[in-house]
Amino acid sequence: MQKYNFDTSNAFISKLNIQPIQSGILDGLSFAVKDNIDIAGFKTSFGSKAWFDLHPPALNHALCVEQLLRAGAICFGKTIADEFTYSLDGENYFYGTPINPKAPDRIPGGSSSGSASAVACDLVDFALGTDCAGSIRVPASLCGIFGMRPTTHRISESGVLPFSPGISTVGVFSQNLDVLEKVFYVLLNSHQNKLCELKNIYLLDDAFEISDPAVKEVLQDKIMYLKSIKDIQVSTISLSEIFGEEIDLFTCNEKALRVLQSVEIWNAIGGWIIDNNPKTGPRFSFGMEILKNVDRSQLNEALYLCEKLFTRISQFIKPGDLFCYPTVPMIAPIKGELDNPDKGFDFYRRTMAITCFSAIAHLPEITMPVAHVNNIPVGLSLAGAPNQDEFLLAVAKRVYEVIGYL
Amino acid sequence: MQKYNFDTSNAFISKLNIQPIQSGILDGLSFAVKDNIDIAGFKTSFGSKAWFDLHPPALNHALCVEQLLRAGAICFGKTIADEFTYSLDGENYFYGTPINPKAPDRIPGGSSSGSASAVACDLVDFALGTDCAGSIRVPASLCGIFGMRPTTHRISESGVLPFSPGISTVGVFSQNLDVLEKVFYVLLNSHQNKLCELKNIYLLDDAFEISDPAVKEVLQDKIMYLKSIKDIQVSTISLSEIFGEEIDLFTCNEKALRVLQSVEIWNAIGGWIIDNNPKTGPRFSFGMEILKNVDRSQLNEALYLCEKLFTRISQFIKPGDLFCYPTVPMIAPIKGELDNPDKGFDFYRRTMAITCFSAIAHLPEITMPVAHVNNIPVGLSLAGAPNQDEFLLAVAKRVYEVIGYL
Repeated sequence: MQKYNFDTSNAFISKLNIQPIQSGILDGLSFAVKDNIDIAGFKTSFGSKAWFDLHPPALNHALCVEQLLRAGAICFGKTIADEFTYSLDGENYFYGTPINPKAPDRIPGGSSSGSASAVACDLVDFALGTDCAGSIRVPASLCGIFGMRPTTHRISESGVLPFSPGISTVGVFSQNLDVLEKVFYVLLNSHQNKLCELKNIYLLDDAFEISDPAVKEVLQDKIMYLKSIKDIQVSTISLSEIFGEEIDLFTCNEKALRVLQSVEIWNAIGGWIIDNNPKTGPRFSFGMEILKNVDRSQLNEALYLCEKLFTRISQFIKPGDLFCYPTVPMIAPIKGELDNPDKGFDFYRRTMAITCFSAIAHLPEITMPVAHVNNIPVGLSLAGAPNQDEFLLAVAKRVYEVIGYL
Repeated sequence: MQKYNFDTSNAFISKLNIQPIQSGILDGLSFAVKDNIDIAGFKTSFGSKAWFDLHPPALNHALCVEQLLRAGAICFGKTIADEFTYSLDGENYFYGTPINPKAPDRIPGGSSSGSASAVACDLVDFALGTDCAGSIRVPASLCGIFGMRPTTHRISESGVLPFSPGISTVGVFSQNLDVLEKVFYVLLNSHQNKLCELKNIYLLDDAFEISDPAVKEVLQDKIMYLKSIKDIQVSTISLSEIFGEEIDLFTCNEKALRVLQSVEIWNAIGGWIIDNNPKTGPRFSFGMEILKNVDRSQLNEALYLCEKLFTRISQFIKPGDLFCYPTVPMIAPIKGELDNPDKGFDFYRRTMAITCFSAIAHLPEITMPVAHVNNIPVGLSLAGAPNQDEFLLAVAKRVYEVIGYL
């Protein structure tokens, strides 16, 4: 792998050196911050130069940044995000595309593109991102690193630019599971020392079924090893079996999560955009039309379906259980390729069908770089029951020892 | 009780007539909206004239408002809130004090003061408020009506002005438990038709102990009747027993919730206040100094204690269980009385010691007008396990039939 530095990675919007406020369990570790999370004294761009120009510097650190600086970590800078964090591709029209060091001709994924790139380029030990419909999990998977979206709302969004308050969450990237676990112990204020035993791994059939054959194949090879772990049941399950009624992942996304998400995002940024008429890139302009024209008459039905899915999935999954599925149904697309409407449509449609699952059910999910297709990284996700973040982190280490490839 | 209208109640900041978008289960019901929640086309004041002047009208309805209008309800206006919603008293220096119709010389409580007043004056069937450290429960109790704070984060905060994202929640006031239940079924997107049986009612001793003797006495009389309900265990419990270590409610508030809340609120509004230097009333100016000077070195410890309390309390309380305690440890203070520093300190110190309990533990809590002291309303709270909102609403009706006073 070619080496990239702070400049050549194009991961950073600004290089900083913010010293820890006090010593703690993160002493000696460095981190980067996605540019929708406040760092005191600096402007937060929301991935938009127009937003950057029209807003004052942040008065205070976001709560999550403050937690890390008070646990001994040092902050090396702010990282590029997709425009208004509304994208999964990482190609920011104005700020450019952070490098995916393991596949330099391909996209890094977004919207936490720079945070994933900074970690994958080995420029920081870990990085903060946010994840609504995949903005941590997708770039982690495409860049071949670990990334975790914790249980929705377990980490405070204070000082993070409001986006989709019912779905968004702060999360973390790292190349090292021990680092990831330590950082989450700080962010989650964990004090659990008794964790439950891993019992069941449910392979979510629907997610494998909509993945590219090559992705499915390399992951199934890995899963063979999972079945060798003692005292663990590995079985295949369909979404309809969990839900107790016929349903598929496309419906979950298109009739439930995406409606809620679109209404929330347009509530958060629509007024500012209409009032200020900022210059936006072509992909965001396209997305904005979708947001603007979302059919709000579907809202109550979409919310009802989200709640029903949340309830049934969380009744199904018990503290010692995990779901397992491909994080993204394909390898990283080549840069620019998603400008082709068919390719763009297919990438978003299949990817969000998978990423919506844990977002709807409020499950903590971790993606692990376990395989390659044509030397391009492929991620495998494990998702635990709500609030079982510590269990998920502990189990991921055990699973990764068996199936990881480092 | 004297009759008040839209003008004489001083509950409203603006009288509106926003027709339902479609017909639904709330057909025929009218509501009012606290003025930190967006209504499309109108400015949201945040209880501050300065904020009102410097912000454009909202482009969209807050998600909760949209849900209600799409379920058949009609909106009659926006109600006065305390300045920046940072208060529990309801005496807004600029907008005035909404009437407490059951005790017109006394405060209505805040910060959802106008919403409580509008309901208590019988001007709407229900009203939306928000509750961080008691902003629904306190005015409901002081005005002698029902008010519920649901499980934290079960209702989307989309379109609600960001305040304390880890703690704040949207909730509802009504004089009628059937109406309250219907409205929550819409807001929570409920589809639960099988509810668990009520098993245990735990009287939270610490909350009774810090209440005025007269409040304690009238509530204990009511609780005698609770013990007559068949198949239900009523017992007294202390916070230390639940937590498994010595702790008291003052510590929970002062060392845990209040630190988190102060950091979050200052993150949300501090920058705007410093940049715009708005004219503020004397009480908010005093509170602002507290927010500005909060000791952030306590943050990690406070978050750790919040998480520990949340975990232990939610491990203790099971789906069929309730906690029961006085909502507010005293009757409504006389208007202006809280300007006396000793009275103000005592009101906030003891009230927030009680209101912090469900906020820390993410419990749904409902306050019911069950008694009087000197003809002034006294509220009793029931709190259920997280996500047991529907159970709580159903059980509140059963309990109120036994101990209510209508």
